[in-house]
Amino acid sequence: MTAACDFSQGAAFVRGEFVPIGQACVPITDWGFLRSDATYDVVTVWEGAFFRLDAHLDRFLASCGRFRLDPGRSRDEITAVLERCVSLARLRRSYVEMIVTRGQPPWGSRDPRQAVNQFYAFAVPYVWIANDEQRQRGLHLRISEVQRIPAASVDPRAKNYHWNDLTMGLLGALDAGADTVVLTDAAGNVVEGPGFNVFAVTGGRLVTPAEGVLEGVTRRTVLEMAHALGIPCEVRALPAAEARAAQEVFLSTSGGGVLPVTRVDGQAVGSGGVGPLTRQLAKTYWDWHADPRYSTPVRYDGD
Amino acid sequence: MTAACDFSQGAAFVRGEFVPIGQACVPITDWGFLRSDATYDVVTVWEGAFFRLDAHLDRFLASCGRFRLDPGRSRDEITAVLERCVSLARLRRSYVEMIVTRGQPPWGSRDPRQAVNQFYAFAVPYVWIANDEQRQRGLHLRISEVQRIPAASVDPRAKNYHWNDLTMGLLGALDAGADTVVLTDAAGNVVEGPGFNVFAVTGGRLVTPAEGVLEGVTRRTVLEMAHALGIPCEVRALPAAEARAAQEVFLSTSGGGVLPVTRVDGQAVGSGGVGPLTRQLAKTYWDWHADPRYSTPVRYDGD
Repeated sequence: MTAACDFSQGAAFVRGEFVPIGQACVPITDWGFLRSDATYDVVTVWEGAFFRLDAHLDRFLASCGRFRLDPGRSRDEITAVLERCVSLARLRRSYVEMIVTRGQPPWGSRDPRQAVNQFYAFAVPYVWIANDEQRQRGLHLRISEVQRIPAASVDPRAKNYHWNDLTMGLLGALDAGADTVVLTDAAGNVVEGPGFNVFAVTGGRLVTPAEGVLEGVTRRTVLEMAHALGIPCEVRALPAAEARAAQEVFLSTSGGGVLPVTRVDGQAVGSGGVGPLTRQLAKTYWDWHADPRYSTPVRYDGD
Repeated sequence: MTAACDFSQGAAFVRGEFVPIGQACVPITDWGFLRSDATYDVVTVWEGAFFRLDAHLDRFLASCGRFRLDPGRSRDEITAVLERCVSLARLRRSYVEMIVTRGQPPWGSRDPRQAVNQFYAFAVPYVWIANDEQRQRGLHLRISEVQRIPAASVDPRAKNYHWNDLTMGLLGALDAGADTVVLTDAAGNVVEGPGFNVFAVTGGRLVTPAEGVLEGVTRRTVLEMAHALGIPCEVRALPAAEARAAQEVFLSTSGGGVLPVTRVDGQAVGSGGVGPLTRQLAKTYWDWHADPRYSTPVRYDGD
């Protein structure tokens, strides 16, 4: 059934079947679309192995619990679907997303408890949040006055698609000539950007926001690498002014690891080049991909 | 092409074609799904005529402008698509939704300005927010401590699918035995619920929240009806305590008009029955549907 399909652009799992990514769709009436009533997670595959698959599955299942969404399959079954998507697309480097949507309640009901939740997954070629040139020279980051949706409204620890604030902030940043954006909270602290956490190096210590952010797996990896490398860390509020005055700034994301920021709001960060701690952490990030503690080889069909 | 299709459950307009609602879907890679990067509006058809179609089109186009989304067609073209959906489904009473999604940027880009926006529409049988029995006895409303996403994060005047706060609040309300929920703001004022605005009658005056809410077309209709009927109105903050102590409480929504609330947080509102102003406004709401100032007859094919 799948043999005749072209999976070269990516493969998806939709309503129990594997389909080419270009054919994968969600019913327009699914509350996952009409109410953004969904959760998800993204794990990457690098050189044929999942990176920190367990951490992503842990977080995904926790997100499902927080939003009362049921993937309808076990951890091992989810893993098998993800692996099959990657294998069908024959991707050695892949961006792999797992999703649960609310589905829809029976006609006439508006009770989310009556909906049959739906599980989706897809694997596409690896996504970089920054392109080659941006990774070389470092990103220009804008600190936006758009406030990230607060935790009192939507639990940021459960990964969700409520991105209008991030998108509107990103549009403002791109219009202003920056590469990307980080939003602030009501107190003027830097929180997070579209698909990444933020770190600043100030007084020789790493600082990353404690509250109002997704607990990113790459953020956690940075904290663990810092510990292993003996770099002191502080997880606490990061005022915008402190981020602007930092010696180094970088982003952490599954879409590229540790990404240098060399300008904030048009001003050079430190000397204006990629800083030494950023370089060290970026290198360590890729080194850890070869570590069997964190990597799970994908079994490709036919290998 | 459409002749062989069964549109009896509803009709949708998807990628330039009319399809039965059960076949209508959104690509899984559309940012309308993956980032809830979309806007929409809902207009109803009652006894074969759109109600306040102009007001809904005005708001839809304004929402598109606020989120920098382009429906890619004129107001008249949008109207023609909506009318065709209703006509194909042969619905005399219908819930009609128009949507623009971001689409997706070219592969590798994360710039929303490079995406080709997508227009969708569908018509399904009329949706009631409250069932027959609830409309007779009045709804039991819970005032939730979940905070509605603030205007500093997402512009509430542009209709959007950022509903996680509403959904989690609704789940809490249903669990507690209420029928539906209204969220609060950071100051403890009542704001809005899933698909409706809220009114209280206090000291013989109508009160409805001014800030942090969708400017509902039915809300506006209630304010205009009150003016026509000589009922004084205040559009201002509505503290939760004032809503709990009100003589009458009702909801305004395209999904049923003026819906009585007779219990708030387990306590009877006023005498516990549907109040006289609520009854008068509900009756006037349906009377106005026959007024040619507000109604636009649907041209059904074959009539």
